[in-house]
Amino acid sequence: MSANVDENFLRTQRVGHLATVDARGRPVVVPFCFVYDGKAFYSSLDEKAKKVSPEKLRRTQNIRVNPEVALVIDHYEEDWGKLKFVLIRGRARILYSGKEHGRAIELLREKYAQYRSMRLENRPVLKIVPWRIREWTAE
Amino acid sequence: MSANVDENFLRTQRVGHLATVDARGRPVVVPFCFVYDGKAFYSSLDEKAKKVSPEKLRRTQNIRVNPEVALVIDHYEEDWGKLKFVLIRGRARILYSGKEHGRAIELLREKYAQYRSMRLENRPVLKIVPWRIREWTAE
Repeated sequence: MSANVDENFLRTQRVGHLATVDARGRPVVVPFCFVYDGKAFYSSLDEKAKKVSPEKLRRTQNIRVNPEVALVIDHYEEDWGKLKFVLIRGRARILYSGKEHGRAIELLREKYAQYRSMRLENRPVLKIVPWRIREWTAE
Repeated sequence: MSANVDENFLRTQRVGHLATVDARGRPVVVPFCFVYDGKAFYSSLDEKAKKVSPEKLRRTQNIRVNPEVALVIDHYEEDWGKLKFVLIRGRARILYSGKEHGRAIELLREKYAQYRSMRLENRPVLKIVPWRIREWTAE
């Protein structure tokens, strides 16, 4: 973690955007909910807005072919002097069960009340370990 | 354009997220302001939050190596029953001058008052022509 990055911003923002790359080298990007524990980002492959099983999700298929991902966490407002974004580049893998999987679900439920009534235990968790974190601000 | 996509949503949303892929096949994603004219998306490589020249911007370098891009335009709120996103996959190229470049700047200034006092004429415009547009809603 670079000393210049606002870690609290990364922990508290409600939605990020995750980019993966398909087998033909073409990007895909989706909004996603996540938690950050200071070392890795975790996201549940929950049922929200998904019409296919976790295994058939494009992001899952892409990560299997190419684990390199990028995610951006940003703040937009009409006063462009206050724009800010943090770009995270990292490698992703999918957790299906175990202690880290369970802990990620706990953290997700702490941050998002919406998850407290959803069954997540049987859904995979995406883990992203950053190799670079960079922050941009308009100032 | 698929009949199921909310074109007005694409025209009026204030910020989208653009993914490109670098020469090593790794994605990058950034927030961006854009206009949509029903056929293509346009974005100015303006000076907002950029510390390097347009030619040195990663997205410019990436598009030169790989024109395939993805962009997502979404609506987030805490009521997850109202989540919505549109994923656009397409090919990008950079316009430096000419009629289409000028028209894109006009459209950007109509949509974003912030651009009316910024010098955009000498800045490149990113043009993205979609080959697929898909909408997801929580319902």
